[in-house]
Amino acid sequence: MGRTLTYLKRDANTVNRYKHRATYDLGAIHSIINSSQVLHVSFSPGPPDPFPAILPMIDCYLHGYVSSRIMNLARKSEGDGLPVCIAASRVDGLILSLTPNSHSYNYRSAILHGYARPVTDEAEKLWAMKLITNSVLPDRWDHTRVPPDNAEMSSTVILKVKIVDGSGKIQDGGVSDERKDKSNNDVTNRVWTGVVPVYEAFGDPVPSPENKVSEVPEYITSFIADMNKHNRDYAVTAVNVGLPAEEQH
Amino acid sequence: MGRTLTYLKRDANTVNRYKHRATYDLGAIHSIINSSQVLHVSFSPGPPDPFPAILPMIDCYLHGYVSSRIMNLARKSEGDGLPVCIAASRVDGLILSLTPNSHSYNYRSAILHGYARPVTDEAEKLWAMKLITNSVLPDRWDHTRVPPDNAEMSSTVILKVKIVDGSGKIQDGGVSDERKDKSNNDVTNRVWTGVVPVYEAFGDPVPSPENKVSEVPEYITSFIADMNKHNRDYAVTAVNVGLPAEEQH
Repeated sequence: MGRTLTYLKRDANTVNRYKHRATYDLGAIHSIINSSQVLHVSFSPGPPDPFPAILPMIDCYLHGYVSSRIMNLARKSEGDGLPVCIAASRVDGLILSLTPNSHSYNYRSAILHGYARPVTDEAEKLWAMKLITNSVLPDRWDHTRVPPDNAEMSSTVILKVKIVDGSGKIQDGGVSDERKDKSNNDVTNRVWTGVVPVYEAFGDPVPSPENKVSEVPEYITSFIADMNKHNRDYAVTAVNVGLPAEEQH
Repeated sequence: MGRTLTYLKRDANTVNRYKHRATYDLGAIHSIINSSQVLHVSFSPGPPDPFPAILPMIDCYLHGYVSSRIMNLARKSEGDGLPVCIAASRVDGLILSLTPNSHSYNYRSAILHGYARPVTDEAEKLWAMKLITNSVLPDRWDHTRVPPDNAEMSSTVILKVKIVDGSGKIQDGGVSDERKDKSNNDVTNRVWTGVVPVYEAFGDPVPSPENKVSEVPEYITSFIADMNKHNRDYAVTAVNVGLPAEEQH
């Protein structure tokens, strides 16, 4: 009924810089995560390794090979599970302004914090695999050979991440320069300012040498057409929908 | 003289799965990092926060606001600096095969491990700022109002990351299915298989309302044209240059 769900602001997820660009809204955050091809999942392997690890992964049920490091850590972790940070970032435009310090990007970024545990229930695991496959391309699961056989089921581990908090940060709009530069004719007559839209594009499908289906199915061609239009429109529209220039920098 | 520099394989950076896709070559790894619009930088804030943190960032000199959390941690860190993991990932294609488990992506990914410390030398800081600005768009620094003034210099901290190790992982090529599915006519007659190329595209530049330079300069238009051609060509070419299908899955 118009109610908006938001993540509670805790120390770990509170945005401190450019707070007007922050969002804690579940809808906005999950839309950035779900519309990204790649998520970056960070965890701490622990001593003697001093470095956090980052894995590129797909979806919020995370999947991987049964004996990979993150799966072993998640299986062995006590309590709630392995603490992870999940991040997605999209660049929507290059903001070219008068001086390097005011250069910026139109972007959408989101993080989620949570505890990862392997899914043990077979029905839930199958459901998550369908979700993951359809996140590559909508409806793909039902157009392939399913269900997975026993070997396929047992070689894949699905981690379910229990989300504790999250936040997002979105910048759209255009160039924002300071008065000292905008009033300097020597600078403004010389420096082109504006935004170069950036977006993810999908090319024409290339059939595999062994493919026997003569026409590319409609659910694939319409996905490509829809995404190309949507992504380009978003990047171009983002240039004009931002906050007034005075509030941006 | 044809000698190739590589990172040493240590526990933290050794690729254990699909080893034939791994690379430790500095050229290959740095090219993935340098050609990515966004890097993800992970660090451990430490107790009481159980979660690793991930920041989207630009370049391997990393820059940020003077009082942000990562800058405070890097300033306070003892010894070599703040241990960080830096990651870049690019999706180059959706690999649509006969069965969900053999679905995959053409991709390039790379990680670097290292220790981050603030740059204190002013000349090095200025050099890094030029590098960072030109990573948004080549030659942009010299076409803007430079050098930064005192306020701009002091509000920005540059972290230099001393790289300890790194590795990359690249998949190109096409569909790879198992014999049990390829020999099943019921499946092959029904399931379209192939690759959908994916690439980053740049749109027509949108001048800001306050821009006074009537034509978009050539260094901007040629960057856009070059990148659009290069990115599209890479994604399409990647479909055909992979290992033989037998070795891929």
